[in-house]
Amino acid sequence: MKVVIIGGTTGGAGVAARLRRLGEKVQIAMIERNPYVSYAGCGLPYYAGGIVKNKDDLFVVDKAVFDKRFRVRVSTATRAVSIDRKEKCVYVKNLLLQADKVYYDKLVIATGATPIVPPFAKDKKGVFTLRTVEDAVGLREYIEKSGVTDALVVGGGFIGLEACENLWRQGLKVTLAEKAPQVMAVMDEDMAKYLHMELESKGVTLKLGVGVSDIAETADGKLNVTLDNGSTLSTGLVVLAIGVRPESTLAADCGLEVSERGFIVVDDTMRTSDPDIFALGDVVTVKGVPEDRLGTLALAGPAAKQARVVSSNLLLNEGEESKAKHFKGSLGVSIVRCFNLTAGSVGKTERFLAREGVKDVTSITVHTPHHVSWFETALPVHLKLVFNKVTGEVLGAQAVGQVSVDKNLEVISALMQKGATVYDLADFESAYAPPFSAPRSPVNMAGCVAANVVDGLIETVNCADLEKFDKDKTVFLDIREKEEFEAGSIPGFINLPMEKIREEITCERLDPDKTYVLTCQVGVRGYTAACILRGYGIKAYNLNGGYVSYQVYSRKLKCERDA
Amino acid sequence: MKVVIIGGTTGGAGVAARLRRLGEKVQIAMIERNPYVSYAGCGLPYYAGGIVKNKDDLFVVDKAVFDKRFRVRVSTATRAVSIDRKEKCVYVKNLLLQADKVYYDKLVIATGATPIVPPFAKDKKGVFTLRTVEDAVGLREYIEKSGVTDALVVGGGFIGLEACENLWRQGLKVTLAEKAPQVMAVMDEDMAKYLHMELESKGVTLKLGVGVSDIAETADGKLNVTLDNGSTLSTGLVVLAIGVRPESTLAADCGLEVSERGFIVVDDTMRTSDPDIFALGDVVTVKGVPEDRLGTLALAGPAAKQARVVSSNLLLNEGEESKAKHFKGSLGVSIVRCFNLTAGSVGKTERFLAREGVKDVTSITVHTPHHVSWFETALPVHLKLVFNKVTGEVLGAQAVGQVSVDKNLEVISALMQKGATVYDLADFESAYAPPFSAPRSPVNMAGCVAANVVDGLIETVNCADLEKFDKDKTVFLDIREKEEFEAGSIPGFINLPMEKIREEITCERLDPDKTYVLTCQVGVRGYTAACILRGYGIKAYNLNGGYVSYQVYSRKLKCERDA
Repeated sequence: MKVVIIGGTTGGAGVAARLRRLGEKVQIAMIERNPYVSYAGCGLPYYAGGIVKNKDDLFVVDKAVFDKRFRVRVSTATRAVSIDRKEKCVYVKNLLLQADKVYYDKLVIATGATPIVPPFAKDKKGVFTLRTVEDAVGLREYIEKSGVTDALVVGGGFIGLEACENLWRQGLKVTLAEKAPQVMAVMDEDMAKYLHMELESKGVTLKLGVGVSDIAETADGKLNVTLDNGSTLSTGLVVLAIGVRPESTLAADCGLEVSERGFIVVDDTMRTSDPDIFALGDVVTVKGVPEDRLGTLALAGPAAKQARVVSSNLLLNEGEESKAKHFKGSLGVSIVRCFNLTAGSVGKTERFLAREGVKDVTSITVHTPHHVSWFETALPVHLKLVFNKVTGEVLGAQAVGQVSVDKNLEVISALMQKGATVYDLADFESAYAPPFSAPRSPVNMAGCVAANVVDGLIETVNCADLEKFDKDKTVFLDIREKEEFEAGSIPGFINLPMEKIREEITCERLDPDKTYVLTCQVGVRGYTAACILRGYGIKAYNLNGGYVSYQVYSRKLKCERDA
Repeated sequence: MKVVIIGGTTGGAGVAARLRRLGEKVQIAMIERNPYVSYAGCGLPYYAGGIVKNKDDLFVVDKAVFDKRFRVRVSTATRAVSIDRKEKCVYVKNLLLQADKVYYDKLVIATGATPIVPPFAKDKKGVFTLRTVEDAVGLREYIEKSGVTDALVVGGGFIGLEACENLWRQGLKVTLAEKAPQVMAVMDEDMAKYLHMELESKGVTLKLGVGVSDIAETADGKLNVTLDNGSTLSTGLVVLAIGVRPESTLAADCGLEVSERGFIVVDDTMRTSDPDIFALGDVVTVKGVPEDRLGTLALAGPAAKQARVVSSNLLLNEGEESKAKHFKGSLGVSIVRCFNLTAGSVGKTERFLAREGVKDVTSITVHTPHHVSWFETALPVHLKLVFNKVTGEVLGAQAVGQVSVDKNLEVISALMQKGATVYDLADFESAYAPPFSAPRSPVNMAGCVAANVVDGLIETVNCADLEKFDKDKTVFLDIREKEEFEAGSIPGFINLPMEKIREEITCERLDPDKTYVLTCQVGVRGYTAACILRGYGIKAYNLNGGYVSYQVYSRKLKCERDA
């Protein structure tokens, strides 16, 4: 049997290596348009920033290893031009424009995606994307040789944020423009704001809600960038990170089914509409992740898992369909380091679920120390949990913090993989010793708070909802200690330290006919205070995430003004 | 309703706080024999070592908070002497030996456990345990004031290892004596050896397989310790950390059901054999964890979860049994920091399962970089997965390394909580960006290797099994590069770099009738090499964990000699 694989990075290379292990006798050919295979695409921003020092470090496995160890015939610098499904062959052209055709019994398409570059940005000196090794090498060279002192990053997704950090590391003054009102589309705005604050604190100029409508080279070798709000700015360097589009032309041209947005349609065995052609990686649709998030699912982890599925299924004989391996879909777990912060997401955002009209969705946010507070320096993990308030089903989670964000997200990913409720998060058994966690880890805390919501033990409100309360019928109480309150509080809230609440009630100084909205620092004491009020038959809401959440919420104005 | 709680640390204090939130009108009394409540028992070794600087930091919530915020009547320095179940009262005595009795409608026993102190060690100056704040304060004072320069730690469990690190931090020369042939009973010996190596590298003298049979004070103020191998040693300080026994006398004396090993028997609603009496924490049996590991399940995490269950169930009215909350049992997730290493465990060890005669158990070990190898410094996570080789059910996992051990263990804990197979570990979606993980995280790698074993794609052997092969019928091949082989290899193995294997086979220089045992550095290349041999119909085994595992395995002699 002869298998031809188009594309030699995570998806294609992964299929080639495992297919060889499963079938020593299979003929395997791999076609790659770049001059190399199996490079670390995720490392490109870090090469630009100098953290990855040598270009060679970006090559995970070189061509010689595929050749000798895996006996894969690799053709680099070779483009697949078209696929003839009747003849079962791929027409290819190499750098010298020599044409050839390669016959296959089974074909694998792992062509990935290409960065979106608007027409006005094409072939402009000083404008870069970050997809290939050449991109990163070119960018670093440009920084080192051009004497550039500032840069504009367009797009606040993973690559945009990593680019900001790495350009900053190279000493550049960085501006970030993002068309949406927030960075990181895989997070809700309340959580993305931590990143806004972090970027600003490092001197990155944030332009939110602003796209780029033109780029012009100027006589002094700089770039004049026109923003879609009409303003212009001059910069020495532009990094475009506004997303990718799937490289599905080959597939579409030979009549394979392709989605509206250009992704190759596969079933969960990773087969395309032609049973002899498989596809995987950034170029395919993925089950279980909403279509409109596919653009952001250009992730290496799912590609590696799909490679395992494809390599197994390539070897199935006719009639062995029942033995097929299945790709389980993706939760879209993603994470990014942005200066000293880490931010990540799993599952769906509240924003997405609202847009889809999903019912009974709510969320809670906790600010929990990453380990016990009495051990060395405990740092908060800001963790938002999105869940169904009736069934307790966990729909998504987002986390931000300096440490342990990856750990807490991965735990939620693991639980969601097996179908989690908020009770599972409350029951989760963390690995606790003082340097690592607490008897209640951030995941446990989020689970317990959410379980209290589902169980009806607490009603919470978000900062954005505070304005909806009738001021005449509501009392806004900050139940922290006097000193805490005086150091900063939410406008309209009056201070009543929680230890005095019972006295106020029993002395009949609290009006039982009013509604009480309570806040404390992070929401923990507020919960206890709300329970006390409820114990006396008084209606009380607890502010979700307390004053810490409010501090982030109230940054809204600043970020909008910036843009 | 009046609830009396005996014990005011994690279990008891947890019940008190949540019970108040759930029921403002309940009367709650808490009886604690220490002069304080709610202290951080896990912090005691770190107080002794000076990481936790102030004694006050060890008090999580003080008595005044229980009094004012939670309206709990706390009696500290008060001992519960007996329980009269007919009268429904607890007889107590305070420090002044004043006797009293406290009536209850529901009683909660959270008396915890006490360190085991053999008779010969009782009341000796310079001999310490680490259970109470006084213990830790006394130990630190003794170190600071006595001029002691060395210490013997007896027992290599969590507290023993933490004591080693913290005494070393105080500048003492430390010896560790452990009766078992290894430290950390919750791990298999192959994984515990990393800790042996770490301890030795820090200058801790390891005495494995050796218990203590006598301690005598000497005229010069030192301690003369007799080991059970007959030898003696002189030391300035002894820390006993040989385990705890449950404080169940009260319960046993009033006729509650107590297990053979002295733990109070509870059902999964945390009820004792008396429906009006609940118990939780270190003093109770725990479902799903084998009886003989109960002694090591003195963990704060499960106690916090049990507190949630107890507080809910205390408020159930008669006939509401169906609304009862249930404690799901414990996987016994545990973790310890030991100098620069972290080591932890979840589920069952191979040793335990073998002793229990469980069928079809096997294990694999991977040594996977904690993040992509090309990003800054990647450090190995040594991860052992214990599983059923027929069904793929995950039975346990153990991990050791400098970083990410907690994360990878927690992921496996989360998956096991929901009933995991090795395929679930392979499918797990990690949070990957270069600073955090890799497209295949350590959990993914372990899952993939184990899945290959279950699928029959690879047969592995452990270092201990190498001797079982008939030398005349077996070829031991080290398939690493020449330079790697020459830098250190396993006796009896000959070098054949993997890229040459196919040539050797096709040139008929490998005897197809022999069995081949292959090793590489960590087991990854060896798997590919074994696949090649199998492709030519040659029987091949891959050494589990490769040369890295062998290096640890071969340390056996050194450790035994030390003891």
